[in-house]
Amino acid sequence: MALSLVELIAHKRDGGELAEAEIERLVSAFGVGELADYQMSAWLMAVYLSGMTTGETVALTRAMLHSGTVVDLSAIPGFKVDKHSTGGVGDKVSICLAPLVAACGVRVPMVSGRGLGHTGGTLDKLEAIPGFRTDLDVSEFIRIVGEVGTCMMGQTKEIAPADRRMYALRDVTATVESIPLIVSSILSKKLAEGIDGLVLDVKVGRGAFMRDETRARELAETLVRVGTGAGKKVSAILTDMNAPLGRAVGNANETREALAVLQGGGSEDLVECTLALGAEMLLVSGVFATEEIARRELTMALSSGRAARVLERMIAAQGGDPLVVEHPDRLEVLPGEPVLAQEAGFVAAIDALEIGLAAVALGAGRTRADRAVDPAVGISIESKPGQHVERGEPLARIHARNPSDAAPVFERVRRAFRLSDGASPQRPLVLGRVGSGIGGVS
Amino acid sequence: MALSLVELIAHKRDGGELAEAEIERLVSAFGVGELADYQMSAWLMAVYLSGMTTGETVALTRAMLHSGTVVDLSAIPGFKVDKHSTGGVGDKVSICLAPLVAACGVRVPMVSGRGLGHTGGTLDKLEAIPGFRTDLDVSEFIRIVGEVGTCMMGQTKEIAPADRRMYALRDVTATVESIPLIVSSILSKKLAEGIDGLVLDVKVGRGAFMRDETRARELAETLVRVGTGAGKKVSAILTDMNAPLGRAVGNANETREALAVLQGGGSEDLVECTLALGAEMLLVSGVFATEEIARRELTMALSSGRAARVLERMIAAQGGDPLVVEHPDRLEVLPGEPVLAQEAGFVAAIDALEIGLAAVALGAGRTRADRAVDPAVGISIESKPGQHVERGEPLARIHARNPSDAAPVFERVRRAFRLSDGASPQRPLVLGRVGSGIGGVS
Repeated sequence: MALSLVELIAHKRDGGELAEAEIERLVSAFGVGELADYQMSAWLMAVYLSGMTTGETVALTRAMLHSGTVVDLSAIPGFKVDKHSTGGVGDKVSICLAPLVAACGVRVPMVSGRGLGHTGGTLDKLEAIPGFRTDLDVSEFIRIVGEVGTCMMGQTKEIAPADRRMYALRDVTATVESIPLIVSSILSKKLAEGIDGLVLDVKVGRGAFMRDETRARELAETLVRVGTGAGKKVSAILTDMNAPLGRAVGNANETREALAVLQGGGSEDLVECTLALGAEMLLVSGVFATEEIARRELTMALSSGRAARVLERMIAAQGGDPLVVEHPDRLEVLPGEPVLAQEAGFVAAIDALEIGLAAVALGAGRTRADRAVDPAVGISIESKPGQHVERGEPLARIHARNPSDAAPVFERVRRAFRLSDGASPQRPLVLGRVGSGIGGVS
Repeated sequence: MALSLVELIAHKRDGGELAEAEIERLVSAFGVGELADYQMSAWLMAVYLSGMTTGETVALTRAMLHSGTVVDLSAIPGFKVDKHSTGGVGDKVSICLAPLVAACGVRVPMVSGRGLGHTGGTLDKLEAIPGFRTDLDVSEFIRIVGEVGTCMMGQTKEIAPADRRMYALRDVTATVESIPLIVSSILSKKLAEGIDGLVLDVKVGRGAFMRDETRARELAETLVRVGTGAGKKVSAILTDMNAPLGRAVGNANETREALAVLQGGGSEDLVECTLALGAEMLLVSGVFATEEIARRELTMALSSGRAARVLERMIAAQGGDPLVVEHPDRLEVLPGEPVLAQEAGFVAAIDALEIGLAAVALGAGRTRADRAVDPAVGISIESKPGQHVERGEPLARIHARNPSDAAPVFERVRRAFRLSDGASPQRPLVLGRVGSGIGGVS
């Protein structure tokens, strides 16, 4: 005899494993209101404390995925691959990465999110482009992916509605930080894009969701295992998020820096992150045999301007001004006031969390999901970790809407910089890799 | 800085201990809707899995107690003591116990519940008495306790409303069987009666909420520790609930047997349970020095008819027919059809759970809280454990409203009896005792 819904909660409470059909039943009962919010939240707490097996997490991912629309990209030939980042400060990679990979012949359908708390969101950054629309419907999304090779839209209500409701519960019941729940939430939304493969950028450090490298590796491994179990080609790289990525923080400011990458510029760490993820996406797609070949192809797509042309076509297709690609200064960023070094030294560390929170205080981010952001404010990092500064040289610049916003932020940004007398060795950006079907971490 | 409500959930999730003020805040926020049902249920699951200390359980008991009306019995002189049973099959003890203890000079204010599932409820049994009202208001309750010495009413909406809402959540979120939650639920309601002392009858066995003796002892010890921590005189006895208590199951049937005890009759185990609990109540009240003296006083109150007179006055005060005390056959019980032994032997065991469920199938109990019960149906045990029966002699009798109800019950009742060739030693009824301020179990 099938267990009742309450018995399914009890089974997980007692550390038992639920069958695929049982997890499907919980999620579908939740969808129709047969399982109430207060029952789901008790189950989520039981999952938080008792964990889930890979099989259960695959089943939960599938059940949430099929709670809504799954985009059908089967009419578009070739491999479709996306990238998902667990979120960080200054992470504008998607904007340059998607057109770059598309320029190498692999389709990149991308459903993105908005910023919340200290981490930014790709949609907010894209909307700094005049006219750019992210509220596409699914048929427009499919058409643009087919015609341009990539498209970036916001999550619609039709995609994984069970995940949206479960996440809202987790947010207020202290059940967010559970690896199986994080994994099924990420993958259910990403798999709903109709992709064949996925590369995950799991950020580690002060400005990341996962501050601890062991936990981050566990998350990366679980993402790859569950994504593979759900029938996709998946791999993950772990990247450092102790300092902000690149030099720009804030919406238009970050979009400008992503555009600079497509023009052969951008700071070294940002370019490396873009190339590492791009190579991984090309390898996952099976189009190129080695990382070396993939990187060479990406570099050619950059230097030839092919990647920039793809982004221009995508921006035009989504109603935006394609001239921003050649002229990033068409994106308004408010004038920057410098934060000066009080003493000379080497920049040993920049606290990404503090920089992220300072940017939120300026209006670049939001503390509640229903708030708007100011595209023109932000922070520019002038001195990156490893660099030497003299006393009185700028550590960063603050782009504020008005002086009263800027005043409390100055000291916060200054304190985010840690200076040392000697040059200290810097961590590499890419800390590890977890491959689909490989299982191990390198 | 005070933790947010979500942080309080997280703290319990991580196995932390909450301060008294933090638990008060959770319960009061729940009362005003600031803490939603889905947040409370996540906290309840965290408590289920992480446990609570004695201090936390005392704080939760107090917070739920003060979520509603606390009856003020201070105008009535003397010690007030109540008894609470964790529920069993055939447990009609309250009906003879309360007037018996009141006849010894100690006040017994008693707020009782209804039956649910296989366990019966005192209110349903009392309502088998024509005219008897249990829906008193608090002022009537206080008056009758003062004038008669005892009164039995149903729980009003004003008593411990937080417990009622939390219990409703626990019931559908698999968080019922948590000792700290059980203890705070029981004690918050009982302490709201305005009592000075409480004796708990923790039932152990097949027909009890706690089937396992170790868990039952843990429950008894926690009840005593938390009740004492809340400033009351509390003790507990553990009693066997593998077989039904006494011979009668069903509402009028059980009330008849309780009345028989007051007339010097009733089966041996039922009388022993009544005297053991009565002696404990008198000891807790401090009126008598030893169990021997207390038992002698109780026996005199029974044989003199004083206890019966108290019950007559209580029934009259609550609108019922007091003549039932002298004439229990005024309570209608339907004619009984015998269940005959298929073979000769000694009754080794009677499965109380099966007998309880069979009585529910006849209409004596309810499977949902909003259902009515049939007072005249039930089961009478003809052969108690340890007795010898010949083939064709009755094991039990079934009092059914109509033959179609009875048919499926016959075989179930027969199978509930286990016969053996030789006489097996019977467990004592009282399995142990946990005393207030003593701490140990004897």
